[in-house]
Amino acid sequence: MAGSEETLKWIAEEYYDLNGSHFDTLNSIPSPLEFSKLVRIARPVLIKDCPVPKAQARWTDEYLTERCGDQRISVACTPNGRADAITRGPDGRLYFAEPHVEQMTMGDFLGKLSSNESSPESEVLYLQSQDGNLYSSNPGVPSEFQALLTDVPDQLPFASEALGNPPDAVNLWIGDSRSVTSIHSDPYENIYSVIRGSKTFTVFPPTEAWCMEERIYPHASYHRFDDQLELIPSEEDAPPVRWSSILDPTDSTALAPEAHPIHITVTAGDSLYLPAGWWHYVRQTEVTVAVNYWYDMESRGSGWVWLNLLRGGASESGPPPGNEEDELVDGADSDDDGDE
Amino acid sequence: MAGSEETLKWIAEEYYDLNGSHFDTLNSIPSPLEFSKLVRIARPVLIKDCPVPKAQARWTDEYLTERCGDQRISVACTPNGRADAITRGPDGRLYFAEPHVEQMTMGDFLGKLSSNESSPESEVLYLQSQDGNLYSSNPGVPSEFQALLTDVPDQLPFASEALGNPPDAVNLWIGDSRSVTSIHSDPYENIYSVIRGSKTFTVFPPTEAWCMEERIYPHASYHRFDDQLELIPSEEDAPPVRWSSILDPTDSTALAPEAHPIHITVTAGDSLYLPAGWWHYVRQTEVTVAVNYWYDMESRGSGWVWLNLLRGGASESGPPPGNEEDELVDGADSDDDGDE
Repeated sequence: MAGSEETLKWIAEEYYDLNGSHFDTLNSIPSPLEFSKLVRIARPVLIKDCPVPKAQARWTDEYLTERCGDQRISVACTPNGRADAITRGPDGRLYFAEPHVEQMTMGDFLGKLSSNESSPESEVLYLQSQDGNLYSSNPGVPSEFQALLTDVPDQLPFASEALGNPPDAVNLWIGDSRSVTSIHSDPYENIYSVIRGSKTFTVFPPTEAWCMEERIYPHASYHRFDDQLELIPSEEDAPPVRWSSILDPTDSTALAPEAHPIHITVTAGDSLYLPAGWWHYVRQTEVTVAVNYWYDMESRGSGWVWLNLLRGGASESGPPPGNEEDELVDGADSDDDGDE
Repeated sequence: MAGSEETLKWIAEEYYDLNGSHFDTLNSIPSPLEFSKLVRIARPVLIKDCPVPKAQARWTDEYLTERCGDQRISVACTPNGRADAITRGPDGRLYFAEPHVEQMTMGDFLGKLSSNESSPESEVLYLQSQDGNLYSSNPGVPSEFQALLTDVPDQLPFASEALGNPPDAVNLWIGDSRSVTSIHSDPYENIYSVIRGSKTFTVFPPTEAWCMEERIYPHASYHRFDDQLELIPSEEDAPPVRWSSILDPTDSTALAPEAHPIHITVTAGDSLYLPAGWWHYVRQTEVTVAVNYWYDMESRGSGWVWLNLLRGGASESGPPPGNEEDELVDGADSDDDGDE
């Protein structure tokens, strides 16, 4: 990095001096014009309103179980709640670890979720299949949650109108206090609505990418053997994954002193607008149900260049710019990489 | 600049690869939401429509002369049409040269403008008093063009609504083919409407700031002695001015090969949206009358940091960041520095 690391530190400091750690709170869903301004400013905004009111009104365990019936849904299983995260393997090396995915009914899943939460020895389940598990711009695979779609609009009019496109993906997330989402950033404008429970986001601006200590990790996945989950390194030809080395950004000793985490708690009925490129780490304190909308970030103008620059794209010792961009797309933006 | 110059070149190349030299054309004034999107993308847009229709319909020489009557107006006088530009002084040094300013009636000014245009020896006059010479957010001095204000709205509703503020300044510009505006950038969202004649803007994105070769020049002004204009260096304590060294960016031999000028001709009845931070050099081919609206650029988010970075703010050998920002404000953004 050399000279370019100095530049990245200068940018982060200037940005912090101008913006601080402030985030705005809105009391209602913004108009398209208001949302367009928020996207221009690109700071997180807590919205004390829910754009998926039917889900908010209806989604008890009983309702979800009854509606989904016998439909099998994909659930991530890990021994420690760290799906899509940097994890030490049996050989002592660090891997980017993907969860074991198991099919079960919604009723089984919710039953295990509430019984497992109180038993620390048990496996951790997380419904985080993402990739548009409710609605996807890729019409290939039908949703596993067809029975819930009448409760969730396929787009948010204020956002679609402001951004000029429907969302790329709409996702359902259900997990408990033992699941965390490791810190990462997405090239998506993210609107995240908590339906039940509460999520705490620890977020950092794109300008603090240099504090995230991204490195390239080999890939591994959990597999089930004799009722045990084991982390198995992937074949040699599996592409490695670029990911942050910061395992717990809520632990200030794990961070460079120049990093400025912002903690935002989103409770049932609230939504969070998280702009493209913002780093986020997510925890929940209880069983939490959420729906999020990912909208493609603007491809024109300087947004992509800015995010690539901040992730070290201009570094002489890093990969050439072309590869760097691919990494942004194939790495943090990948279909499999634990976004939230 | 050292390592940081490499970074700036990388940014400019990435930006050009993604955006090219394209500019959009709209056939009518955008809605507030459409304009908000344009500001987010921050590329120039030619708008084939005029938001000041009364001026468009009425402003003949006769009308302007009659309406302004005996009111004295401030007119910039130079021997060469280069007001607010880098100019060689009598001592052989280069200066940032401000024009001599003379008071005259609109009738005198327009009469001289049409008679001088065909005589290359004569002085060049340019009505470019700017600083809100029609409407200013600084209510100190009354407009010299009070009689014309009924023809010009004090704000553009689509822009004020999109940006959340009225304009900082609304300006009248009248000049002929002998006047040029030297290349510079402003921290303003600029909407520029040509009422009569035609202007050609040669523009560069903020990412090509490094191609503009900004340097610090001593200050000088034209003064009239015995009917001659002479360039007189200012007192030692006059602050020097940071300005581009590129005298004619339409001459490709004057530019780094990595620079990508975009030429946009704005004819009577058309408007140009020029985003904050874009470099521009402006010429007209005949007597040209124009009105422009400057809106403050967004102070939140990363816009300021981005523009300061691109102008070398992170450079180790440059001025410290604090001064750099002051320079952006006091230099290219100054009240006296030949913006357009």
